[in-house]
Amino acid sequence: MSLLVSKFGGSSVASIEKITNVALRIKAMKDQGNDLVIVISAMGDTTDELVELALKTGERNNPREMDMLLSTGEQQSAALLALTLNALQCPAVSLTGWQAGIKTDGIHSKARISGIEPDRIQSEIEQDNVVVIAGFQGLSPEGNITTLGRGGSDTSAVALAASLGAERCLIFTDVNGVYTADPRIVKEASKLKQISYEEMLEMASLGAGVLQPRAAEFAMLYNVDIEVISSFNNEPGTIITEVGKMEKHRIVSGIAHDINVAKIALFDVPDQPGIAMTVFKLLADNKINVDMIIQGGVRSNRNDIAFTIEGDELNRALPLVNKVVEKIGASGMSYGKDVAKISIVGAGMQSNPGVAAAMFEALAEANINIHMISTSEIKVSCIVDEIDINKAVQVLHSKFHLDAID
Amino acid sequence: MSLLVSKFGGSSVASIEKITNVALRIKAMKDQGNDLVIVISAMGDTTDELVELALKTGERNNPREMDMLLSTGEQQSAALLALTLNALQCPAVSLTGWQAGIKTDGIHSKARISGIEPDRIQSEIEQDNVVVIAGFQGLSPEGNITTLGRGGSDTSAVALAASLGAERCLIFTDVNGVYTADPRIVKEASKLKQISYEEMLEMASLGAGVLQPRAAEFAMLYNVDIEVISSFNNEPGTIITEVGKMEKHRIVSGIAHDINVAKIALFDVPDQPGIAMTVFKLLADNKINVDMIIQGGVRSNRNDIAFTIEGDELNRALPLVNKVVEKIGASGMSYGKDVAKISIVGAGMQSNPGVAAAMFEALAEANINIHMISTSEIKVSCIVDEIDINKAVQVLHSKFHLDAID
Repeated sequence: MSLLVSKFGGSSVASIEKITNVALRIKAMKDQGNDLVIVISAMGDTTDELVELALKTGERNNPREMDMLLSTGEQQSAALLALTLNALQCPAVSLTGWQAGIKTDGIHSKARISGIEPDRIQSEIEQDNVVVIAGFQGLSPEGNITTLGRGGSDTSAVALAASLGAERCLIFTDVNGVYTADPRIVKEASKLKQISYEEMLEMASLGAGVLQPRAAEFAMLYNVDIEVISSFNNEPGTIITEVGKMEKHRIVSGIAHDINVAKIALFDVPDQPGIAMTVFKLLADNKINVDMIIQGGVRSNRNDIAFTIEGDELNRALPLVNKVVEKIGASGMSYGKDVAKISIVGAGMQSNPGVAAAMFEALAEANINIHMISTSEIKVSCIVDEIDINKAVQVLHSKFHLDAID
Repeated sequence: MSLLVSKFGGSSVASIEKITNVALRIKAMKDQGNDLVIVISAMGDTTDELVELALKTGERNNPREMDMLLSTGEQQSAALLALTLNALQCPAVSLTGWQAGIKTDGIHSKARISGIEPDRIQSEIEQDNVVVIAGFQGLSPEGNITTLGRGGSDTSAVALAASLGAERCLIFTDVNGVYTADPRIVKEASKLKQISYEEMLEMASLGAGVLQPRAAEFAMLYNVDIEVISSFNNEPGTIITEVGKMEKHRIVSGIAHDINVAKIALFDVPDQPGIAMTVFKLLADNKINVDMIIQGGVRSNRNDIAFTIEGDELNRALPLVNKVVEKIGASGMSYGKDVAKISIVGAGMQSNPGVAAAMFEALAEANINIHMISTSEIKVSCIVDEIDINKAVQVLHSKFHLDAID
């Protein structure tokens, strides 16, 4: 008998009919003798509808009350799933985040799980109940309801799996697993049987929307095996595990891309210590993540600095950057959202020199101009023109023979 | 500076526009220097919509999960009101029932408040926040979310007012106060300036839907002054207080009526000790309240027993009563929903004999037949044919000169 933690996303529970399908799947797992903890997102558009209501109040920046409001979505779907399971003679009980003992820090709307007190969950499991937990939420040290931010239910599930010592964490979703590239762009994209935590973390951070980066990070930290699996069919999904447990080691496992990118350049920045810090500290203080940075084009004692941020953050970033331009005495700035990021990810890269060169070669052959480059041990990312992004994914997928993977 | 507890019902917060009106009213009270605790119901039809969703799951009797589901309605409206108040520069924070320290017993869907731990509320008041509390809900000793059942938000408000030592508990509603009779039936009905707890309790129990009986009971027990007041205008409402504080003492304060009544009669019940108990214990075990009972028509050693229950409960009661009829050896039964209850209520009745006789006389003069009678110290109720009920209200209102009250 295994303890499994499963997470179902909002699209899997968008109606009572879909909730019933989920419940049947859960009942089948229960009938196989497993102990089950289920983490659930809000039904379909519930969260968006609540956000819309909140906007009508005229209050724009009150994350504490937004958390209070939005957390009801998961509580509703948890209760409805528990009702449905009971109707199917599968005893179940729903718990909110705080009832499940999920503790977070106090950063509303993007809280981080700080710990789990699993007593209540364990006592429900001992009573042979399926435990349905409202995802995406927890309780702050001040006793306030917090939400974990985008994709928080994935993180809830992985953290619960770690805390309960679960055999595996199943992430049910609307895709069949993790693919070598976005199948909408590359027809030949293959489903990966396994992928390492590190690769998944890079893929997730790079915009492959199957699993939240924070959830992959948690899984790696606590060594929880995750299976990303379809909620609409019974095919095996992709298992995310530690490198040592992988059957095959590939040099490149996948191509990730992200078009939600904006580039900002500052011209003629005085070449003095601490100047770059001024820019990036101001952005960090305003919770704007800077991704890639290049500093170059040295002429006499002045520099140009270019960097990328999330495209959605551009409007928030511009006034901040403009302020800095004056303050540090730069000669000007430029910006644009017409760029995109393309990345290759693979655990085998670190021991195989020449992978980055092969990437640049393939892009050059396709006449795709590279604006910026960043590398990590298992990843190479390039900023290219957004207009070239689909072609870039295709040529790299082909270059690294990802259509022939198994 | 006073501490006021105010409750707004579902129809007062049915849309963001209405929530804004409520918020403006709250802001005005705050600007007058009051400390404010606000108890709020779910928006308009939210609860009904959630019940409908739950019915689709096929699970019919799971009050624990229903409480989990329905309690989200009040949490949403509390958060939306807090957002709106903040948008109006009136600092506010919303709390769920459990965050507000409201403890209940474990009877899901009709829990009773067992105590309040007001630390969190008091600390929010000290920070000069308007405290918006989700009504209708609390936390059981087992750590489950409970709801208080019909009109539970009134009870939440009165219990909070008692616990916090509030100056007054304001119940905002869609009527202007407590009337001498239903103004839809009696055009001359007058609004009462004051009414005693005992009278209000009788009126509420008798179907005058302004305040829940449980809330009136709490107010009487803890000596909390309540004002029932319109949320749509600024007229003074009706103050519910202890007899000693009343300015005027009336013999009869109001006429209440209730058409949600069913009558059941058992024929030829053997005249043995414990027989009546069999019937009423079975109904009580099934949570069906028996209101009026008459036992009479003695022929030899057998009796007829007739009693009334809520009309809505008739379908549930009939199979139970049928079972008893056989078991106790009664010769048969009859039932009907074509009856109604008319009552006169007044604190001065106890020291004024002849009030009941005046009531019977007025009904007789109007050719209205009385089927059953029950009396308490401050109330006389009669069961009459439902078809006669409006006329009964009108003749009694006139008989006791209630159109001339102030």
